Order: sequence, then C-alpha cells, then structure tokens
Amino acid sequence: MTARNISRFWEWGRKIICVGRNYADHAKELKNAIPTEPVLFLKPPSAYVKEGSPILVPLYTSSLHHEVELGVVIGKGGNAISQTSAMEHVAGYALCLDMTAREIQDECKSKGLPWTLAKAFNTSCPVSDFIPKERIPDPSNVKLWLKVNDQLKQSGSTSQMIFSIPYLISYISDFITLEEGDLIMTGTPKGVSAVQENDELQAGIEDIAIINFRVQRQER
Amino acid sequence: MTARNISRFWEWGRKIICVGRNYADHAKELKNAIPTEPVLFLKPPSAYVKEGSPILVPLYTSSLHHEVELGVVIGKGGNAISQTSAMEHVAGYALCLDMTAREIQDECKSKGLPWTLAKAFNTSCPVSDFIPKERIPDPSNVKLWLKVNDQLKQSGSTSQMIFSIPYLISYISDFITLEEGDLIMTGTPKGVSAVQENDELQAGIEDIAIINFRVQRQER
Ligand SMILES: [Mg+2]
Ligand SMILES: [Mg+2]
Ligand SMILES: [Mg+2]
Repeated sequence: MTARNISRFWEWGRKIICVGRNYADHAKELKNAIPTEPVLFLKPPSAYVKEGSPILVPLYTSSLHHEVELGVVIGKGGNAISQTSAMEHVAGYALCLDMTAREIQDECKSKGLPWTLAKAFNTSCPVSDFIPKERIPDPSNVKLWLKVNDQLKQSGSTSQMIFSIPYLISYISDFITLEEGDLIMTGTPKGVSAVQENDELQAGIEDIAIINFRVQRQER
Repeated sequence: MTARNISRFWEWGRKIICVGRNYADHAKELKNAIPTEPVLFLKPPSAYVKEGSPILVPLYTSSLHHEVELGVVIGKGGNAISQTSAMEHVAGYALCLDMTAREIQDECKSKGLPWTLAKAFNTSCPVSDFIPKERIPDPSNVKLWLKVNDQLKQSGSTSQMIFSIPYLISYISDFITLEEGDLIMTGTPKGVSAVQENDELQAGIEDIAIINFRVQRQER
C-alpha cells in the first residue's frame, strides 16, 4: 500500500461521525426538540458510495430520506482540541448525503434502540470528491442544496447550524480521538423527503461541488 | 505501509459492530425485553485500547460498566453471507470489553437518542491479542469471565447466546458489508457492574486469552 492520500479519504478513513438536528428548521420538521448539546451517531466506512454507483434502498425500509450535509475531512488528528485551533485540524470538505431509513429511525427512537439499521447500511453515505480547504474559505456560510428529479427539495445555508464546525471538533475530540481521514457530517437543513426507485438525486455546495446519484432497490 | 497483518487488526480494522442483549440473563438484569432480532450498535476504531494503557472513565459518567464479550475478527469480507458459509469469513477471535456509560445509555434510551456518548468514547473497547480461529474450535461453547479486584463478577458461556455467530454474520452482512479486520462483539452475559478509579479488571475466555486493565479517570 502506498502512502494514504487525503483526496481519497473514503478508501482508508476509519470513522464517520454524524451530527443530528444541527439545523433548527430541520429539528422542527421532524418534531424534535432543539438540542442543547450535539446529537452524535456513527456510520461505518462501508457506508461510503461514490458517483457511478447507485444509492440502494435497503429491503427493510419504504421511507428512505435524503439529507444533504457539509462533510468536514480531518487532516491532523488529535484529542481535546480547542475551538480556537480546531480549523487547523481540517484538511478539507466533502458534500455528503446522510441517507436515512426514516420509519426505522422513528421505531428505534420510540423503542430506545440505537440507530444502526436506520443510518449505517451500505450506500447510506454518498460522498463527493474531496474539496481542499482553500476552496471553501468560509464554511460557516455556504449554501447546500438538493434536487430530486430536478425539483428543489433542500436549500439552506451552513450559517443556520446550531453548533459550528470548531465547536463540533472540540466537543467530539473531548471523548473521541479524531484521526486523519475521519469525516464529520454536520447536519442537514429542512426539506428532507423520501426517495423512490429510479429517482435522480443531484446535490451541491453552491457550485463548488455537485454530485449525482440514482436510487435503486437493494436486490435479494 | 506494509501489508496488513490480521494479528494487529485493531491498528487498521475499520469497524466494530456490537450486539446488545444477546444473552437473555443480561437482557433481564437491565430490564430489557428479549430481542427478536439482533440489537446492533457501532464503536469507532479509536475506541480500541490494549493492555498497558488504562481504561479511562469519561468525565461525563459516574457509572462506567464492564461487559465481557467474545469478539469475532473477520478475515474474508463479504455481503449477503449465508449462515452456512459464515465461519469461512472468520479469521479468529479476541476477548473484548464493551465499556458502557450506563446512566448515559439509560438517558439515551429514554430520550430516543443514539448511544454514541454511552458506547463510543476513547478506551471503550479494551481488546486482547488476536486469537487464531484454530484455538477456539467451538466458539458456541466457551466460558467468558471477568473479575474486578479479584472478585468474580461475570461468568457465562457463549452457549447462552440468543443469536449465534453464523446468524449474526449473515444478518449483519445483509445490509453492512463486512471487511477484513472488522470486529463483531457478540454480547455479554449477566453480572455487569460499575467500575471505580484504580480498579483492576481481569477477564478471560477460559484460559485461552486473559487480559488485565486498570481503570483511571480521564484527565481534563
Ligand atoms: Mg443527518
Ligand atoms: Mg442472510
Ligand atoms: Mg455489550
């Protein structure tokens, strides 16, 4: 194996930490309280999927939702990182979708169960190419958008985040060591909805990064 | 980087999939229903800790519980693996502890939140050396035990598992692709209890693998 290349972090990165309910308008649309501390969950790296491969609807769900999110790619690892030095640990960004089996998540929530079935399945993390840090000088003020079959579903600005990127890096690294190649998914603005077989998803961070994915049923 | 060596899977393996409530007597001691399908959650690889380093009690918990578990180390990856071929995907085993911030888990369960704070923190996965498959010819019938300060707390047999190792491998791989170096933690028998600073934990799979860890507070 040659040296790891951050521009292909999905091939070797070891964790994906997701932040839930980080946009107040999305927390509200799902009838969740506005969080007073970040809601964190994990996806395994096997959840990554790149353009050219489809997003698969797991056999056990009929309500697969899209959530467009800004992903933060860690360059320099660390723990107990301060907010003031947090951005030094960022190598760049990626446009990500947090695909969610919504009715399964609702069931997990009502039963007090972990969200694994709802969030961690294969292709639950479609991801763009790596975006070097320099291309997004102000990650706290970029627009995220997502269209299904050319119809705009989600449109929001990272300025609406409840917990900022430096806050999240500092908060997480107090108890989970961050490592090079890790991805932090920073939450989704409102407008999530269910996708269907053969839908075409297009999403972007303004016009800095645009991804296209087709939806297919998982085969038995 | 040289070729990956399965005997050091914790250095490069990319996921840890944990099974909750897989022993009926443990489900009962926590007043949980006996599951009809596996309860799965994830730890990140940053949770691994090896002998010689302490288990750290996160600052936010005062009820850190030990759970001794048989870990299954994946050799050959795959998805949609059948129960009959499942054991061909196993490279070996490890003795693992699923360290759990119990009161935080209780709070997550009651609020319908993911279990990340309770299960995914640094040092939440103490792990033994790799145990080649040949050393445990019948993993469905070995004794697991754990002592705190020389007092026996947990003692059970993997024969008490609700879902067998082949069943778990097949179930998981239907929606999460298994990869070489992945670890599946198969649940804990009854007897879990809180540990305190300076406690000495000793645990074993019979006398096939024995691990020793000391408990320390996380420092600010
Ligand atoms: Mg999300
Ligand atoms: Mg199967
Ligand atoms: Mg456990």
